[in-house]
Amino acid sequence: MKKESREHDEFSVTPWEVRGNIDYEKLIKKFGVEKLNDKILARIKKHAGELHPMLRRGVFFAHRDMNWLLDEYEKGNRFFLYTGRSPSGPIHIGHLMPWIFTKWLQDKFNVELWFQFPDEEKFLFKKNLGFDEVQKWTHENMLDVAALGFNPKKTHFLVNTKNANLLYPEAVKIAKKISFSTVKAAFGFTNDLNIGAIFYTSMQAAPVILPSVLKKKKIPCLIPLAIDQDPHFRVARDVYPKLGFPKPAIIHSIFLPPLQGTQGKMSSSEKSSAIFTTDSPKEVETKIKKYAFSGGKDTLEEHRKHGGNPDKDVSYQYLKFFFEPDDKKLQKIHDDYKSGRLLTSELKQILIEKINKFLKEHQKKRKLAEKSVGKFLVKLNGFKK
Amino acid sequence: MKKESREHDEFSVTPWEVRGNIDYEKLIKKFGVEKLNDKILARIKKHAGELHPMLRRGVFFAHRDMNWLLDEYEKGNRFFLYTGRSPSGPIHIGHLMPWIFTKWLQDKFNVELWFQFPDEEKFLFKKNLGFDEVQKWTHENMLDVAALGFNPKKTHFLVNTKNANLLYPEAVKIAKKISFSTVKAAFGFTNDLNIGAIFYTSMQAAPVILPSVLKKKKIPCLIPLAIDQDPHFRVARDVYPKLGFPKPAIIHSIFLPPLQGTQGKMSSSEKSSAIFTTDSPKEVETKIKKYAFSGGKDTLEEHRKHGGNPDKDVSYQYLKFFFEPDDKKLQKIHDDYKSGRLLTSELKQILIEKINKFLKEHQKKRKLAEKSVGKFLVKLNGFKK
Repeated sequence: MKKESREHDEFSVTPWEVRGNIDYEKLIKKFGVEKLNDKILARIKKHAGELHPMLRRGVFFAHRDMNWLLDEYEKGNRFFLYTGRSPSGPIHIGHLMPWIFTKWLQDKFNVELWFQFPDEEKFLFKKNLGFDEVQKWTHENMLDVAALGFNPKKTHFLVNTKNANLLYPEAVKIAKKISFSTVKAAFGFTNDLNIGAIFYTSMQAAPVILPSVLKKKKIPCLIPLAIDQDPHFRVARDVYPKLGFPKPAIIHSIFLPPLQGTQGKMSSSEKSSAIFTTDSPKEVETKIKKYAFSGGKDTLEEHRKHGGNPDKDVSYQYLKFFFEPDDKKLQKIHDDYKSGRLLTSELKQILIEKINKFLKEHQKKRKLAEKSVGKFLVKLNGFKK
Repeated sequence: MKKESREHDEFSVTPWEVRGNIDYEKLIKKFGVEKLNDKILARIKKHAGELHPMLRRGVFFAHRDMNWLLDEYEKGNRFFLYTGRSPSGPIHIGHLMPWIFTKWLQDKFNVELWFQFPDEEKFLFKKNLGFDEVQKWTHENMLDVAALGFNPKKTHFLVNTKNANLLYPEAVKIAKKISFSTVKAAFGFTNDLNIGAIFYTSMQAAPVILPSVLKKKKIPCLIPLAIDQDPHFRVARDVYPKLGFPKPAIIHSIFLPPLQGTQGKMSSSEKSSAIFTTDSPKEVETKIKKYAFSGGKDTLEEHRKHGGNPDKDVSYQYLKFFFEPDDKKLQKIHDDYKSGRLLTSELKQILIEKINKFLKEHQKKRKLAEKSVGKFLVKLNGFKK
């Protein structure tokens, strides 16, 4: 018993690895972030007019400096949003989760979004990944982001190697204030790591100050991200004030669990763990039926009698975190499943239909994005700055 | 006696520090480069029609892979030249020395030149140097380079933070193959060094492959440089073949000694050690008269009787390395000084006139460069690559 509970405690969350049974309460303490409490949710609701389901249901659960950001907003100092995607493979629904929330923030607060595609990161950190392969995925991933309907007039895609004229000058200013000892401690780097990977965190830190540099005024920054990316900004946060800029606010999400259960996160590198945005209706159906971890009982009879456990059921989690925004409908599914009225096969069928409806629309918009994605690319050369 | 000879052995040559009484023979062995022998000089002469005084007089004294470069040239595979200047202060005549030789190579071999201004380097390595100050010096230094008369149609200035779109993608490919252990060993870095400085060497290594990447064919590269910069390429040379590119050839120069004597090199940070390109005729006269180390005897009488030592006389060295290209005239000065016919004050006067004649012309061209320097800037965005 004691051994089992110790095993449950063991989890790891870094920008390059998420594994184990993640205890988000412990992570809040470990990372030194704050819980997203009712007071902050009420402040957000006041300005947005509503609360996004991902806020109501704890998908976004932690933050840094949200009170400061809202203070600034209320003073008329509008923030910008910054998030990103490090390309190395296809997009799955777990990736979309924070971006859908980011779009909601953009719409509700009517703000600019800088979206970074650090196309050197995975190349530098993965031994066998080629530069050209990452370029291919960068294009593919941009289509998925564009398909989410961000306002192209207020959304700027930064591709690190293509927009290095803008990013590198700011990155070196940040890098000058970060020693190898610091990244060694923060990320667990060793001396055999390559010097590009060692430098990389400053390229991820740079967009926080870029709009302020370009517009020559201090613009507050809000970063919605999955919590594994927090260490980059934990390192950089100390640096921004030294350069004359405010620290960014951050709002952290949990991870969408993999199909197999609640350990780790949905991952592109484990194909059977993920629903990809390009999956066909048949593929979605097969994956959910075959892999989605069930909170139901072993036999129909037992399930009818004792009911299932929605908190352990992956299909229910996906509905809660992403696909069923209606609280009443979700509650009914919850109660029906818990009471045994709803069978696992029926619950899975609800999810399959929801996902396929979403993906049909997404794939249509993704196709259209092939022509429109250019509108999002930052064309500034930076030479005349 | 033994102690004295040991002290004379102690010298240090790194990209960021040159001090002591440099033993170039020892440096050749330490750096693992080859001496520029008569056979190679003859091959250069065959193609150039003559030998530049800096080749005849050993200012350029060592090399890597010059035979390979000349083999390629003879096969019709023309090379390009790559050199640079890391801005952090004004240009002195010691800086100009390898660039004047580079221009000779460009003219004689009719080749392209890529000239790098790594405007992040000194910013990253000098604690109290600001980014904006380096930008000011970058502009000032570009004027001096442009004033030397490079062919603007065949000369491309790369400013690292302005041309990062071109350099950063190639730098990350190089960086992926260089570990922190490697730069630690090559440059003596420690863990408290900042992560931008650690990454920097890959930005200096990138122009070696850039023209090949842009033109999609393998173009040999020849780097004329002062030998303190060799360690950057010693680290990168192992990497180029792994990326499918040939190693660059390098031709190394000695340092112009400081006015005070033959220890170390002329340095912008020690004002009294250097003749700057913007010095007035009066300033040049005063500096030479006041600081130029003399190989003459203590009294007029002794000098007339025993003669001076031209090998220790800084004025004579400057004439030999830079300002008196005519071998016969130089020999006469040498012999007259050695015999005592020529006094130190007379030798200094010869040098003062030579330098002031050179600087008058240089300052005129430098002024004109304020309007023409834009022609040299690489405007390629790199976005469409």
